[in-house]
Amino acid sequence: MKKLILLAFCLFATGVYAQTTDSVTIRKIYNEVLNNSPSYEWLRHLTQQIGPRLSGSAGAQQAVDWTKQLMEQQGFDRVFLQEVMVPHWVRGAKEVAYVQNGKQKTAVPIAALGGSVATPPKGIQAQVIEVKNFQELRELGADKVKGKIVLYNRPMDPTKLNTFEAYAGAVDQRGNGATEAAKLGAVGVIVRSMTTALDDNPHTGSMRYATGVPLIPAASISTNGAELLSKLLKQNPGLTFYFKQNCETLPDAKSYNVVGEIKGSEKPDEIIVVGGHLDSWDLGQGAHDDGSGCMQSIEVLRAMKALGIKPKRTLRAVMFMNEENGLRGGIGYADYAKKNNEKHLAAVESDNGGFTPRGFGIVGTPEQRAKAMSWKPLLAPYGLHEIGAGSGGADIGPLAQLGTVLFGFKPDSQRYFDFHHTGIDRFEGVNKRELELGAASMAALVYLLDQHGL
Amino acid sequence: MKKLILLAFCLFATGVYAQTTDSVTIRKIYNEVLNNSPSYEWLRHLTQQIGPRLSGSAGAQQAVDWTKQLMEQQGFDRVFLQEVMVPHWVRGAKEVAYVQNGKQKTAVPIAALGGSVATPPKGIQAQVIEVKNFQELRELGADKVKGKIVLYNRPMDPTKLNTFEAYAGAVDQRGNGATEAAKLGAVGVIVRSMTTALDDNPHTGSMRYATGVPLIPAASISTNGAELLSKLLKQNPGLTFYFKQNCETLPDAKSYNVVGEIKGSEKPDEIIVVGGHLDSWDLGQGAHDDGSGCMQSIEVLRAMKALGIKPKRTLRAVMFMNEENGLRGGIGYADYAKKNNEKHLAAVESDNGGFTPRGFGIVGTPEQRAKAMSWKPLLAPYGLHEIGAGSGGADIGPLAQLGTVLFGFKPDSQRYFDFHHTGIDRFEGVNKRELELGAASMAALVYLLDQHGL
Repeated sequence: MKKLILLAFCLFATGVYAQTTDSVTIRKIYNEVLNNSPSYEWLRHLTQQIGPRLSGSAGAQQAVDWTKQLMEQQGFDRVFLQEVMVPHWVRGAKEVAYVQNGKQKTAVPIAALGGSVATPPKGIQAQVIEVKNFQELRELGADKVKGKIVLYNRPMDPTKLNTFEAYAGAVDQRGNGATEAAKLGAVGVIVRSMTTALDDNPHTGSMRYATGVPLIPAASISTNGAELLSKLLKQNPGLTFYFKQNCETLPDAKSYNVVGEIKGSEKPDEIIVVGGHLDSWDLGQGAHDDGSGCMQSIEVLRAMKALGIKPKRTLRAVMFMNEENGLRGGIGYADYAKKNNEKHLAAVESDNGGFTPRGFGIVGTPEQRAKAMSWKPLLAPYGLHEIGAGSGGADIGPLAQLGTVLFGFKPDSQRYFDFHHTGIDRFEGVNKRELELGAASMAALVYLLDQHGL
Repeated sequence: MKKLILLAFCLFATGVYAQTTDSVTIRKIYNEVLNNSPSYEWLRHLTQQIGPRLSGSAGAQQAVDWTKQLMEQQGFDRVFLQEVMVPHWVRGAKEVAYVQNGKQKTAVPIAALGGSVATPPKGIQAQVIEVKNFQELRELGADKVKGKIVLYNRPMDPTKLNTFEAYAGAVDQRGNGATEAAKLGAVGVIVRSMTTALDDNPHTGSMRYATGVPLIPAASISTNGAELLSKLLKQNPGLTFYFKQNCETLPDAKSYNVVGEIKGSEKPDEIIVVGGHLDSWDLGQGAHDDGSGCMQSIEVLRAMKALGIKPKRTLRAVMFMNEENGLRGGIGYADYAKKNNEKHLAAVESDNGGFTPRGFGIVGTPEQRAKAMSWKPLLAPYGLHEIGAGSGGADIGPLAQLGTVLFGFKPDSQRYFDFHHTGIDRFEGVNKRELELGAASMAALVYLLDQHGL
C-alpha cells in the first residue's frame, strides 16, 4: 500500500511538475513575443514594400525571395524552396460597371472574380434578374434567365457568431454562380460581396467553371452596390446593368513554397508544421489574408530560438503558395512529404486573420483531440478558450491523408470579412498586439505538441 | 420512492426547461440585435454630430438632451434627468512643446492632463530629469529635481494579457506625478502616454493635486515623443524642454445623468441598472470611451421591448455624467438611490470599449458570483468565457455600498489603449458587429438577472 501511495504521489508530482514547467515556458514564450517580436515590422515590409502577391505575379516571386532570405537571417537550420506550378490569372485594367436606369447611369464598384473570363472588349449590357439562391434561379427557369445578367444577392447571415460559418453559407454564389446561371443562358453574373458590412468595397475571390457549360464573366459587387441595384430593380425591373472586365488566365507559372526548419534534437524525423499562405489576392496588400499567418509562423520559430528552446521534433515554418486560387502549394507540400516518406505529426495553420486569439480548431481522432484539449488549462489564461473539433486550414488539409493532426488557429472572427479579398486588406488594419498574441498562441501550441506528442 | 423519483424528475425537467427557455430567449436577443440594432447609427450621431463631451461643455449638454430624446423615442416607461454639479476644466488653446537640443528645436506632441493648471503665458523651459517611478524620483532628491521638468517614462507592461492591468500599473505617473515632483521642487511634469503602442498621439486623462503642494503644470507626451526625448537626454543631459498650455478650471457646472426605465411587471421596486458614461475627454469623439457603452445600454432596453420581453424587475439604462474627471454622476446616482430607498439588485457597466465580448467581471459575495457563474453554459456559445471575480465599473462602483452586485462588461482589451483619451477615439475605430455583440451580451446578462435574481 505504501508503495502504491508513493507511486501515486510520484505520478501526481510528475504531472504537476510537467504542468508547472509547461506553464512557465508558455509564459516565457508570450513574454518573448510581446517584448521582442519583429513580426509586425516584417508584416509592414511584406505588405507595404512587396504588396499584393497573387500566384504567378512579380509580387509573389518577391515574397518567395524575401521570406527565404528572412528565414535564413534567423539562422534556422535549413531553409529551402519547393517548386510548384500555379495558375496565373490576371485582372487587367480596372473594371467598369454601372446601372442604367432610363437615361441615368449610376456607377457601382465591382471586381472580377478570380478565374473569371473577360467580358467582350466593349463590355456587356443586359437586363438583370435578382435571386437569393440556386433554387430560386432554377425555379425562374431558362425563359426568364436567358440573355440576362444574374444578380446573386443573398447576404451573409449576420446572426452567425462565427463569421466563417456565415461565409460558408453564402460563398456558393461566388464559387458556382456563373455555372448555374450559364446553364440557363445567362450572359454574366454579379455576386454580392462576401461580408456582413455595408460598404463600397467589392470582395474578389475564386470561382470555378464546370466543363460543358458556357464560360460567362463573373464579378463581385460591393454590398452597397448590391443594395442599390436591388432597390432600383424593384422600382424598374427593366433597367440594365453594364460591366466590362478584361481579366485572363495565362499559362501556369512556376512558383514555390518556402520552408524554414529547426531540426529536432530527439526525434528529428517527426515534423511539426506551422504555416500560412504567402500568396494573396491582388486588390489590397494581403495583410490579414495571409501575410499575418506567414509572419506569425516565422515568429514561432524565431521565438523558440531566442528562448533557447531546443525542440525534440523538427519544426517547420511553411509559407504555402497559391491557397487563393488553386491550393497547389498545399497539395504539393503533402505530395513532397509522401514521396520523401516524411512523418508529419501535426500541422498548425493561421489563415483567419491577425486578430485577437480565441483558440484552435482540431482535426484528428477523438483521442488526439482529447489530448490537445487537456492542455486547455495551460492556454485559457491567454484567452484561448475555444479548443476542440473544428477546421484546420486549406493548405494543411492535404496532410490529413498522411495521418497528420491538423490545427486551425482561431482568432476572433468579427472583423475578418471587413477586409477579406478587398482593397482595404492593408497593413493598417492589423493591430500589433493582436498579431503578436496570435504568434505567441501558435508557439505555445507548437511547444506543447513538441513536448508531449499526440 | 416513486414520489421521490417523480419529484427529482420534475426538478430536473424544470431545470432543463428553464435552461432551454433561457437559451432560446438569449438566441432571440442576439438575433434581434445583430439583425436590427440601430446602436451603430446612434453612435455615429453621438460621435460625429455631437462629438466630444467633456463635463461642463456644450457637447456634454447636447448629449444629455439628445440621449433623453432618444430614449423617449424608444417608448421607455420613464425617462428622466438627475442633476449633478460637475467639475468644469477647459483645455484652452492647443498646447505647444519642443525639445531644445543646442540650437535645434524638435516639436513633440503633448496634451495637458485634465485638471492641470496652465503654464505661465509664455510657457516653461527647463532641463529635464527622466524617471521610471516615484522611488527613483525620491532617490534623486530635491537637489537634482529642483527647477526641472520631470519626465515620467515608465511604459505600460506589454506582457500583461489584460491591458487594463498594464494601465493600472502605470497610471500613478499620470495621477500623482505632478504632486510627487512638486514636493521636490520640479516646475512641471511630462508623462509618457498610457498605451503600449508607439505612436504620435498624446493620451490625456485626469490628474490630482494634493493640498499643501505647489500646483505645477502636467502634460502627457506621445510614446514616440517620450522615446525621442529619452534618447536625446542620453546624448545630452543638459538639453531643455519647452511647453505651453493654457488650460483652466472654471467653477463647477450643472449637468445631468440621463435615465431611461422599463417598469418591472412583478417586482417593480427591484432595479437592474445597465449603463455607461456620457461624458468623454475633449480630444476625440469619445467613441470607445464611452459612447459605445451608452449606446449599448440603450440598445439593451430597446431590444427587450422589440422582443416583447416584459421584465419582472425594473430595468434602467443610465448615462452617467462625469466619469472622466470627478465621478459626480456615479456618486450622485447612488446618493439618489439611497435617499429614495431604492433597491438596486444589480448594475452592469460597459466602459472598456466597444470591442468583441469576452465576459463579465463580478463584484459581489461568493454566493452571488457562483450564481452568475452558473450561467456560463448559456453565455459561452457567444464567446463569453471569462465570467468571474473582477471589476465592475467606476460609475456603478458607489452602488456597492447599497449591496448592489456589480458587473463589468469585459470586451477584448488589446486595442483599447490605442484609442483611450486620444484624438483618434473616433467613430471609425468602432466595429459595428463588435459593438452589437457587446450590447447583445449585456442584454443576455440583464435578462438572466431579471429572470433569476441573485
